[in-house]
Amino acid sequence: MASSSPPTTKRMEEMAEKITNPDVDFAQWYLDVIREAELADSAPVRGCMIIRPYGYSLWEAMKEALDQRFKATGHSNAYFPLFIPESFISKESEHVEGFAPELAVVTHGGGKKLEEPLVVRPTSETIINHMFSKWISSYRDLPMLLNQWANVVRWELRPRPFLRTTEFLWQEGHTAHATEEEAREEAMRMLRVYEDFAVNEAAIPVVTGRKTESEKFAGAVESFSIEAMMGNGWALQSGTSHYLGTNFARAFETTYLDETNTQRYVHQTSWGVSTRLVGAVVMAHGDRQGLRLPPRIAPVQVVVVPIFRSDDQRAKILEESARIVSVLDDAGIRAQLDDRDTVSPGFKFNYWEVRGVPLRIELGPRDLKQDSVTICPRNVPGKEGKSTRPLEGLVEQVPQLLDSIQEQMLQDALRRREEMTYDVQTLGELEERLPESPGFYRAWWDGDGEDERRLKEATKATIRCILLDRPEGSGKCFVTGRESSQRVIVARAY
Amino acid sequence: MASSSPPTTKRMEEMAEKITNPDVDFAQWYLDVIREAELADSAPVRGCMIIRPYGYSLWEAMKEALDQRFKATGHSNAYFPLFIPESFISKESEHVEGFAPELAVVTHGGGKKLEEPLVVRPTSETIINHMFSKWISSYRDLPMLLNQWANVVRWELRPRPFLRTTEFLWQEGHTAHATEEEAREEAMRMLRVYEDFAVNEAAIPVVTGRKTESEKFAGAVESFSIEAMMGNGWALQSGTSHYLGTNFARAFETTYLDETNTQRYVHQTSWGVSTRLVGAVVMAHGDRQGLRLPPRIAPVQVVVVPIFRSDDQRAKILEESARIVSVLDDAGIRAQLDDRDTVSPGFKFNYWEVRGVPLRIELGPRDLKQDSVTICPRNVPGKEGKSTRPLEGLVEQVPQLLDSIQEQMLQDALRRREEMTYDVQTLGELEERLPESPGFYRAWWDGDGEDERRLKEATKATIRCILLDRPEGSGKCFVTGRESSQRVIVARAY
Repeated sequence: MASSSPPTTKRMEEMAEKITNPDVDFAQWYLDVIREAELADSAPVRGCMIIRPYGYSLWEAMKEALDQRFKATGHSNAYFPLFIPESFISKESEHVEGFAPELAVVTHGGGKKLEEPLVVRPTSETIINHMFSKWISSYRDLPMLLNQWANVVRWELRPRPFLRTTEFLWQEGHTAHATEEEAREEAMRMLRVYEDFAVNEAAIPVVTGRKTESEKFAGAVESFSIEAMMGNGWALQSGTSHYLGTNFARAFETTYLDETNTQRYVHQTSWGVSTRLVGAVVMAHGDRQGLRLPPRIAPVQVVVVPIFRSDDQRAKILEESARIVSVLDDAGIRAQLDDRDTVSPGFKFNYWEVRGVPLRIELGPRDLKQDSVTICPRNVPGKEGKSTRPLEGLVEQVPQLLDSIQEQMLQDALRRREEMTYDVQTLGELEERLPESPGFYRAWWDGDGEDERRLKEATKATIRCILLDRPEGSGKCFVTGRESSQRVIVARAY
Repeated sequence: MASSSPPTTKRMEEMAEKITNPDVDFAQWYLDVIREAELADSAPVRGCMIIRPYGYSLWEAMKEALDQRFKATGHSNAYFPLFIPESFISKESEHVEGFAPELAVVTHGGGKKLEEPLVVRPTSETIINHMFSKWISSYRDLPMLLNQWANVVRWELRPRPFLRTTEFLWQEGHTAHATEEEAREEAMRMLRVYEDFAVNEAAIPVVTGRKTESEKFAGAVESFSIEAMMGNGWALQSGTSHYLGTNFARAFETTYLDETNTQRYVHQTSWGVSTRLVGAVVMAHGDRQGLRLPPRIAPVQVVVVPIFRSDDQRAKILEESARIVSVLDDAGIRAQLDDRDTVSPGFKFNYWEVRGVPLRIELGPRDLKQDSVTICPRNVPGKEGKSTRPLEGLVEQVPQLLDSIQEQMLQDALRRREEMTYDVQTLGELEERLPESPGFYRAWWDGDGEDERRLKEATKATIRCILLDRPEGSGKCFVTGRESSQRVIVARAY
């Protein structure tokens, strides 16, 4: 019985059947992991998905970490209606142009045809501005700092679970300020909140930058994003923050009286992250065996697997295993006992590996005799990561072990990103290198929308963002050849 | 300056202007409190509302207390799609009959007319059964215990904020079991979870019972509810739990192989509470001055109001006030400092009274000199409730004070309900007494749907539920005169 040893050849083969090798077909590997880890399932409505309990608990953990940060920066949660009068969407001209093709429209309600069709919100700038214009009248009402956790709908023709779905869950922050300066500070503050969350909770290093004109949010003056590198070198836009200027304020007459009694438009921001973050965690950390979850956001941080052959051993080992879980639980660690009788320890190892649980503790007869346990961190699979630890003092060590796994996962992701980030001088060079070496390409940039189209046609890559954190200096734009101080990241993206 | 004394005549008059006397017009009082406490605002789409930050934080506190109870009873959260194919709704015949008149229908998506219209979920039994039939194949997959926090839409012609809105937020539990017995136990367990929440968190005593045939959920075998008494003696159905039998399982072929390899239908339950609970808290506890919130679910449990006349006093009093808030905060109490310069202490007292904050702590020059504070519990307004307490040991006392307010509020609500609960023998007697003395009427009951219609026509009251907790015995049905052991509560209801 191979229960306490590393994966057997048989188990490896079984896994290989279920989860495609990511080096061979990364897209299929992604779908396989989502299915095998039971994160999501496809819905009977095209483009929609069901978020299964394990996937949802991962989202809940991320949501909580984000919500704390929003409240700590002075924001309150509120809830605005799902339905928006169609006429609202048209009030801001760029906004309607951007969203019209993606709308779901309710034409009938309560058995009757509606006088005005209702749009299922694709985002809530319009309805929120309608309310802001009612609530805001004086500089004393500002800043107004709101956030909403909600579902939104954008019709999706090429859905991928978590990355692009017709309905998705997200949060959308909406704020109104007296001055441009304050609103710009807010947009930047929330971008940095997203960066902090990505790095310190999800262990995903991100690049922060400004979007180009052609990639910015429909209705924004400027958009900013965090961009993460996935396992295949592609980029995933993982959060955005927008300075909206007075665009929506003008469309909805959202004004206030300043201290000198002058009527002024408010300056606004909006910012959001979505269930797409679940996809980011899968693709930034997953490996051949499945998910790997950073301890801070893992729904289950530690799983304890008892191993026994005889009934005689069974009682003692189960009892001791349950005790460990209970003590960990009391210490605030999300621990679970896998005491299933119907499956083998080998099956359990695989089961929890696929689900990415950061730390497995095995307790077998030899362990019990030696008053020790076997520790298997998910981020270093197989014999290499395994070690034996005395039972005494174990619970005190677990938080440190989890912290160390968290830090290692961030460092691993950072190292991979650095290894897959390149400097590039010309479009020709990019065309040549990108197919062989996917990754982030740093370049000087001074192009326009037309140049971006050329770039995409030639390489399928896009300008992910214009870097905020960059060294001084300038160089020749990799497309136009003009001197520029703008440094960008170019990559294939989801 | 009347800042540290009880409400002045002027303040009382101002309040009276803003909030209608509930004894004169309870319905208008309810709307006034919702507006003045900034719980909600009406939306540009008929029947919808905006839940404002203060109202949403109250919902968040209730949500957390409920979610903990769901998880403690073994349930996991998941998320199912907003859109349901129209054909799904029709699969269970009673279900479609009940919900068809209330549906919102999406006919266009992504700029095209859809082949099959999509219904915006009014509840999720159908789509969840579609998935259950995929996920459940063996007795080993049972019980399946899921819950979802979501928005749902039921077209509403006579909306009232929180009580009846076209879109509302809720949780819906959905479970599948091997046997009828297990499913019935689950339906009862969750009813008792709701009762426990209502009593111990919201300080609202509730009656638990079974719904009559004509009031049960469309598609259920039996429905159960908790019924709370509002300030005007009307009932509010505040939570429901349904035993669905195999109705949806048959419609969606949700079957499993039992231990003897026989194919069987699963037995199911569903159960839900909604943002209607916010309305319950308003109407069960509110008074002439506005909201009164039970400490356990109050977004702000303690407000500290500094009172000073000179700049000299200002610095010291503000400093000490901030210190109190910070120490309370460290002790896990949701405390807030109202240090606004722009409004008077009297304005602040009114502001926090309207919002129902359970405990106000005033700190004025005399207090500071005596190393004391003035304590004003919201549930006993005016001089009667006020007391002076030494600053030393204050923080240790606050949790006890809050517990005691919580307990008093429950006892007050219980006393009022008892005072407004009557025994009634005949329909004639009810017709006579109900208009003068609104409340809960206990009666024997052995009628059918036709008798229920007669009752409603004669009195506008309905059978709220057939009591679960009742003494032994029997008596003559108050409508039919037939002997029965069924005891019911009859009341006007929202």
